[in-house]
Amino acid sequence: MPKNFETAEYRKVIDRIYDEVLPFRGKGKVADYIPALSEVDPRQFGIAIETLAGDTILKGDADTCFSIQSISKIYTLAMVMSHLGEKLWRSVRTEPSGNPFNSLIQLEYEKGIPRNPFINAGALVVTDRLIDIYPHPKEAILDFVRELSGNEDIYYDSRVAKSEREHADRNMALAYFIKSFGNIHNDVDTLIDVYCHQCSIAMSCVDLARSVLFLANRGVNPQDSKQILTESQAKRLGAVMSTCGFYDESGDFAFRVGLPGKSGVGGGIVAYLPEKLAISVWSPELNPFGNSLMGIEALERFTTDIESSIF
Amino acid sequence: MPKNFETAEYRKVIDRIYDEVLPFRGKGKVADYIPALSEVDPRQFGIAIETLAGDTILKGDADTCFSIQSISKIYTLAMVMSHLGEKLWRSVRTEPSGNPFNSLIQLEYEKGIPRNPFINAGALVVTDRLIDIYPHPKEAILDFVRELSGNEDIYYDSRVAKSEREHADRNMALAYFIKSFGNIHNDVDTLIDVYCHQCSIAMSCVDLARSVLFLANRGVNPQDSKQILTESQAKRLGAVMSTCGFYDESGDFAFRVGLPGKSGVGGGIVAYLPEKLAISVWSPELNPFGNSLMGIEALERFTTDIESSIF
Amino acid sequence: MPKNFETAEYRKVIDRIYDEVLPFRGKGKVADYIPALSEVDPRQFGIAIETLAGDTILKGDADTCFSIQSISKIYTLAMVMSHLGEKLWRSVRTEPSGNPFNSLIQLEYEKGIPRNPFINAGALVVTDRLIDIYPHPKEAILDFVRELSGNEDIYYDSRVAKSEREHADRNMALAYFIKSFGNIHNDVDTLIDVYCHQCSIAMSCVDLARSVLFLANRGVNPQDSKQILTESQAKRLGAVMSTCGFYDESGDFAFRVGLPGKSGVGGGIVAYLPEKLAISVWSPELNPFGNSLMGIEALERFTTDIESSIF
Amino acid sequence: MPKNFETAEYRKVIDRIYDEVLPFRGKGKVADYIPALSEVDPRQFGIAIETLAGDTILKGDADTCFSIQSISKIYTLAMVMSHLGEKLWRSVRTEPSGNPFNSLIQLEYEKGIPRNPFINAGALVVTDRLIDIYPHPKEAILDFVRELSGNEDIYYDSRVAKSEREHADRNMALAYFIKSFGNIHNDVDTLIDVYCHQCSIAMSCVDLARSVLFLANRGVNPQDSKQILTESQAKRLGAVMSTCGFYDESGDFAFRVGLPGKSGVGGGIVAYLPEKLAISVWSPELNPFGNSLMGIEALERFTTDIESSIF
Repeated sequence: MPKNFETAEYRKVIDRIYDEVLPFRGKGKVADYIPALSEVDPRQFGIAIETLAGDTILKGDADTCFSIQSISKIYTLAMVMSHLGEKLWRSVRTEPSGNPFNSLIQLEYEKGIPRNPFINAGALVVTDRLIDIYPHPKEAILDFVRELSGNEDIYYDSRVAKSEREHADRNMALAYFIKSFGNIHNDVDTLIDVYCHQCSIAMSCVDLARSVLFLANRGVNPQDSKQILTESQAKRLGAVMSTCGFYDESGDFAFRVGLPGKSGVGGGIVAYLPEKLAISVWSPELNPFGNSLMGIEALERFTTDIESSIF
Repeated sequence: MPKNFETAEYRKVIDRIYDEVLPFRGKGKVADYIPALSEVDPRQFGIAIETLAGDTILKGDADTCFSIQSISKIYTLAMVMSHLGEKLWRSVRTEPSGNPFNSLIQLEYEKGIPRNPFINAGALVVTDRLIDIYPHPKEAILDFVRELSGNEDIYYDSRVAKSEREHADRNMALAYFIKSFGNIHNDVDTLIDVYCHQCSIAMSCVDLARSVLFLANRGVNPQDSKQILTESQAKRLGAVMSTCGFYDESGDFAFRVGLPGKSGVGGGIVAYLPEKLAISVWSPELNPFGNSLMGIEALERFTTDIESSIF
Repeated sequence: MPKNFETAEYRKVIDRIYDEVLPFRGKGKVADYIPALSEVDPRQFGIAIETLAGDTILKGDADTCFSIQSISKIYTLAMVMSHLGEKLWRSVRTEPSGNPFNSLIQLEYEKGIPRNPFINAGALVVTDRLIDIYPHPKEAILDFVRELSGNEDIYYDSRVAKSEREHADRNMALAYFIKSFGNIHNDVDTLIDVYCHQCSIAMSCVDLARSVLFLANRGVNPQDSKQILTESQAKRLGAVMSTCGFYDESGDFAFRVGLPGKSGVGGGIVAYLPEKLAISVWSPELNPFGNSLMGIEALERFTTDIESSIF
Repeated sequence: MPKNFETAEYRKVIDRIYDEVLPFRGKGKVADYIPALSEVDPRQFGIAIETLAGDTILKGDADTCFSIQSISKIYTLAMVMSHLGEKLWRSVRTEPSGNPFNSLIQLEYEKGIPRNPFINAGALVVTDRLIDIYPHPKEAILDFVRELSGNEDIYYDSRVAKSEREHADRNMALAYFIKSFGNIHNDVDTLIDVYCHQCSIAMSCVDLARSVLFLANRGVNPQDSKQILTESQAKRLGAVMSTCGFYDESGDFAFRVGLPGKSGVGGGIVAYLPEKLAISVWSPELNPFGNSLMGIEALERFTTDIESSIF
């Protein structure tokens, strides 16, 4: 049962965690699958908390922008859920995957219906639907993220987007494969272009934390009281984050941290405690599962210290 | 955020749900993989709630004993966790499976380390460790379950156990396969005998609900204040239930119900709301994923009506 | 041990087989994965034998051109083998596949090295190498086939090529997937264009039989005494045909017919008896494994009647 | 086309090959999956040829008995084929496997019907049928092998059989798994006992070569003119040996050697040239695919030197 923490207390917790986790520097490995990511300074570490009460607690490099990568899957999914509702779940399931995130095996077994929207296959289907809906999908995604985080300066990092595009063979394969089952509607080159752009969005921890407050608030963005998703849809999105948000470490994250969340290979993680707060952590060095090593250490200490999690 | 429901309110909710769900009778299919299960009268339906405040709410066939089947995996896991602690997780992971529950593929891919303790492969490893620990494992399991539920009359249904044993080829295969990787220590015949017995335990909804109150209570059995698991271990068990408790419907259950829980092909389901209550539902007819059809319908309505879930 | 059959005897054998196999009309199913193939008149049936002694025996629609589809994999493979020699086998193995011909599973397991050059994945790698070698690959393929069969009129059926190209999602996926492992060098669109063209080659049974005489003759085309492949390379190609030439029916074909051969979903089959003859059979209706139903019936009777096979 | 070699010529070929292959000593690795096999002196090398003309050519350790292991699958298959005929192929296919020989994946995919009789799964089904047919299966197998090779002294090596039995977890798993699909009829312990015995048969190269002469002779044992299999059955067995006899090196063996054959992890290989001869080679050191390294080197040189193979 969440205690009623005050801002000052969160402040103390975050300060302590920051010091405890710093020694983990150098124990992970920066993503190297695209050159643009591998060049990031690995010695960065930021934490941001946004509470529903309106408080902001920042620490370290919380204002530095980085590549959000797979965290973008939350935004496109929310956009498509709000338009398609339950219909979406005919094209993508919400079951955990149990396989490395790029695997084609289950996709073949399940006839082109991806297991969930957070494996690449599922995210491609979601972005394909987004292209069905929006005439200018890249603009629409950026508008949505800017609105959620209240930051008009969020941008596509064109260098990262270009690098993604040049190393997209596996995602091209996935897209054509799903298309062969009829579950991709649009031109694959267009789809991959949008997809590489969404992965290249640059945001800071504070942007990220703000952008998911609506999930902690039953679908309503507390910054402008706008209903982004219905309460039921917000719950569904949280359930998918809880079971599928951390690649093949999702189960372990559920235990160690116990919050709905999503990570990206840029080293960012965003999570939230329902009815309370959103938190984002960033450090570029990854553990063997592709999740931010210091990020997970920090979040585990956080839910332990505040004695709150969803379990 | 859980409202503070009173017993009378739970009573009303349960009465209403019972009436709403009754029309689903006949829409599922009783398990037929062993004759002893297929002979159960399908027209039974029971619900039991046990609150940490000490209240009991029963409805329908809540006192009728049935075969708990895979729900027993909670008990053996709790027993082994309390003895081995973190060491256990070297032999079995806690990641969702993403494959039908008997599949051998991932086991081969992951060299005999089952993905989680609720797929049969993982449950066999857990029971194997239990045999390492207890000289009389069958007695130990029964003692543990009786203590948790406060019911000395809980028993092994020998007819079911015998039927299980006669149809255990798939589990024999799993056990020998895992043994070939060195991750089963004991004689396979002994192991399967214990395993078939644990599946054959007969309990009622009220027994089941009581037996998991300790999980809703940070590891402490509220009935006798005994610490069954550490708080951390209880949280781990809850996390595994949340991500892996319902075969290939675990993600959907997380969304629709949003409680840590576990089902069995006998048609039983047990779940809990942390800090609040435990609930068990039973109806023998299963949906295509092997989970009680009416049970899931009832639980979905329950968390919707009380406006509480872990998400 | 091959008997020394005379032309007149082959004539009689073929006449008899033709009559015996005609009643199988209507028992198979014309390929429907691309519209251009599905429109073929199913009631066609041709047989052609070319002996190393220089005799030609024709029966039925032996002069009608049809889409050779996967039979083209023999030609591109021979072209690339003659240039790369043993080096080719670092990029593609020569082991039977054991999976439906389009499967991605083994490709993932074997890190982008296809199991053999006759599954689509392997044929794509071979055609990719051909593009490395020839500045004008489409012209080169046509030249090669025309030379082998002594027929300057052999052509790409542009309607079929276009239809292939419009239904190439699965092959696009395969190509990008292999490229992600670095085993495709060229632009995927170019590769698929060449590949769709090679599949669209239109040839008759007599063209096909002539075109593989060099394999029955230790690598030397008997029509112009040109060494197409070394004897060792010809033997390797024959070995691959014997173990991998008929999709998931290769083992059964080895038993029932016992000749090195290759089939295509256009309903054509070409095979040869070393040191003796080449034979081609065509009928558009396929059996469940994607091989010409009447073609296999005819070839089985042929090797039984002439009492010769490689076993 | 086989030349007509004389005994003296074979003698010269074998002498030369022996000298050429000896330098490969030390380049392979003796099987170590059971202790009894790992203790064999690796520096042994024997070759035996038996011609249909009645000649015997021996070289090196051709008279030393060794563990034939998987070569025994030929004998049990021949015994069961002669009783069940075509009916057998409903329970086991004859398609190459494309997976490491113990894999359970394809078995699950194909619902308990093994792909061929030379992977362990298929050999277990064959031995299960043999137990259906013979009241004393172990005696029957030994009688059959003794008769084929004309050597009454062939025996089960009880030390090897015991060691096999103690390390049979993987085969126990396979057998129970197949039994769960209904494709094993007998008690699994009995089946594994017979299977471990057949693998433990000790024979010499000369025994082995003689024992497969009937396959080179259209099913008739030339030593006593007894019809062991029909000509068609002998051809089927040869086809299976050609496509499936050397684990995941079967395709490569078809190319390099080009004879129907079968290997065992004891380091033995037996093969035959139809209408001509049988040959057996033995050397305990294995290549990475589990086939005798020197054995394959020797056989490749043999078919090259005599300019005969089935291709």
